[in-house]
Amino acid sequence: MENEPLLMLPGPVPIPMTVRAAMTRQAINHRGNEFGRIYAECTRMLRPLFGTKNEIFVLSGSGTAAMEAAVANFGEGRAIASLVNGKFGERLYRIAKRYGNAREIGSEWGEPLDIAGLERSLEEGTEVVTLVHNETSAGIRNPAEEVGRLTSKYGALLIMDGITSIGGDLVEADRWHVDVAFVGSQKCLAAPAGLSAISVSPRAWKMLCEDRPYYLDLDAYRKSASKNPMETPYTPAVPLFLALHEALIVIEKEGLTQRIERHRRLARAVRAATEAWGLALYPKIDGLHEYSNTVTAIEIPERVKDKDLRGMVKKLGIEIAGGQDRLKERIFRIGHMGAVGAPEMLSTLSAVEFSLRRAGFGVKGNGVQAACEMLV
Amino acid sequence: MENEPLLMLPGPVPIPMTVRAAMTRQAINHRGNEFGRIYAECTRMLRPLFGTKNEIFVLSGSGTAAMEAAVANFGEGRAIASLVNGKFGERLYRIAKRYGNAREIGSEWGEPLDIAGLERSLEEGTEVVTLVHNETSAGIRNPAEEVGRLTSKYGALLIMDGITSIGGDLVEADRWHVDVAFVGSQKCLAAPAGLSAISVSPRAWKMLCEDRPYYLDLDAYRKSASKNPMETPYTPAVPLFLALHEALIVIEKEGLTQRIERHRRLARAVRAATEAWGLALYPKIDGLHEYSNTVTAIEIPERVKDKDLRGMVKKLGIEIAGGQDRLKERIFRIGHMGAVGAPEMLSTLSAVEFSLRRAGFGVKGNGVQAACEMLV
Repeated sequence: MENEPLLMLPGPVPIPMTVRAAMTRQAINHRGNEFGRIYAECTRMLRPLFGTKNEIFVLSGSGTAAMEAAVANFGEGRAIASLVNGKFGERLYRIAKRYGNAREIGSEWGEPLDIAGLERSLEEGTEVVTLVHNETSAGIRNPAEEVGRLTSKYGALLIMDGITSIGGDLVEADRWHVDVAFVGSQKCLAAPAGLSAISVSPRAWKMLCEDRPYYLDLDAYRKSASKNPMETPYTPAVPLFLALHEALIVIEKEGLTQRIERHRRLARAVRAATEAWGLALYPKIDGLHEYSNTVTAIEIPERVKDKDLRGMVKKLGIEIAGGQDRLKERIFRIGHMGAVGAPEMLSTLSAVEFSLRRAGFGVKGNGVQAACEMLV
Repeated sequence: MENEPLLMLPGPVPIPMTVRAAMTRQAINHRGNEFGRIYAECTRMLRPLFGTKNEIFVLSGSGTAAMEAAVANFGEGRAIASLVNGKFGERLYRIAKRYGNAREIGSEWGEPLDIAGLERSLEEGTEVVTLVHNETSAGIRNPAEEVGRLTSKYGALLIMDGITSIGGDLVEADRWHVDVAFVGSQKCLAAPAGLSAISVSPRAWKMLCEDRPYYLDLDAYRKSASKNPMETPYTPAVPLFLALHEALIVIEKEGLTQRIERHRRLARAVRAATEAWGLALYPKIDGLHEYSNTVTAIEIPERVKDKDLRGMVKKLGIEIAGGQDRLKERIFRIGHMGAVGAPEMLSTLSAVEFSLRRAGFGVKGNGVQAACEMLV
């Protein structure tokens, strides 16, 4: 207890104390051996979370910076198809329009991606595809493996946003034929906000664009990373690197398999509570698309006001997320990513159950007890 | 003493403990009241350091990100003249070439800018001028006021890099007709690396380009900053904002006038020591151009090896900087920016004096005692 609200959001998430404490040390020279070693260890520990053997770079910028880096370095002037079924898919599409000749392959938010539409666009010569693996805005996990099968079949480059899946759910970038993947620090890694990491396949390097941005020029990152000691091309956010390093040690100690299973268990617990309460999960899943394992999106029942629901939860010291943009006041979202476990989940579900009642919803059954069944 | 080397570099610099400690608190929601208040207070406390009444935004990216934001948002497709007399002037010119129709108005590193050449280019229709106020690579302070007089006379936009002057030396952006200015967090502000802040004049807003980058889109920053609570468009590097906020409180407590005078006093002390030793300052100053007050560049005497000199200083626990690129092994640089005072300066100069001797240089006089004269 630190009298801070418990953040059960799809990022930012609670940060372990050892990770925060890593930032208190005095400034170090980012052109020295120690920083080089920390950066190198970060990339080594990140690789298994991405499921890749590719080069990984840590950018001093949040997830959106990595999105832009991916599209700007590999999509400039190219035919890009953006798969969209939520806010972050839309964001990638917007960036794609800025740099390339982009088309949207859109679905309603939270509905399955248009895989047939993707295949048609690949037949018509799409060179680069953008995909959000875990679409937090709608709580849906998109079929990265299936998309990778198609892009690989047609020889297109696959850019995958793994911002809220890498480190929390299974990601196998290499096996899935993902060429460029990226993650944000303040999501499943449970590190502070402000960094992102991006992996680049040899095939992607061959497609590196001539006319790249400056701060996000991945070729400059690559050149600096090949130095000894390893460097970043421009001044890095040193304390955030120190914290990320510590967060990755925490992850390595837990073990990736155990960590993914913990996220899935928490997700099952929220879904069990949702069902017990008589509420509906928002996303429409099918055999390929699944509920997210790192955030759960739940429909707000009729007559319940988002403000009342989340306001009461906040009074109990817990922040959950509302819907964004077109889903505002239609859904609420519980994040279960990073370092949280059963205690945080049970207090959250208890507060939600109470707040649903207070907001006038006739809760059907005991969601918290149903969740416990999933957590033991 | 923390058994960390004392960083007497032109950034990163030692960070006060209260500033580092600010980062240890638990993650906060960056879409909430508290973050909004912290961001707003940062911009309020930054304004006097910039000498501006303009809007200021804090970017989650280091100084180079701010350089690119300035040029990309206001220079895309335009006729840009880049004043260059050092590494960072060159960097701005490179970025200018990426986005606009850029020409270099170059001098040798550390020599006065070609002010006559600037006026000719303004006569010929230059729309945007880039300037580095304090060129750390060569230890020279460029005449921002004079450049602003000319850009204002010809109606051109002035972009000024104040990365290593703002917060340490006098900057009067508004009075000097600077339209866009920016600072880095890890320099004179004595905050951790990873943030930059940028100010934008009403005249610059009128010249905002259509085709802007995404992560560094200043119009998006402006829209988010106008919300209540104040926000950033994308996830900010929250711990760095907390640290910057604390660093600005430290500055406010010291008082800007006192802080600038302290930096100037330290600069005079290094120059007095340099003269006493019989060494030469690197930059060529004239009536308009001055020695930098935040970093001093000193010529390495013949027969002394950079490696021996800085290596021995490092053995005494202090890091000073070498020359960059074409000035490698030709100069060494002592940073005196941020929170450092007489104790750090005296230990640094003592170590340099000892190392010069050890490296075989016949030191003429007692530089440390000469420095003391300037510091009392």
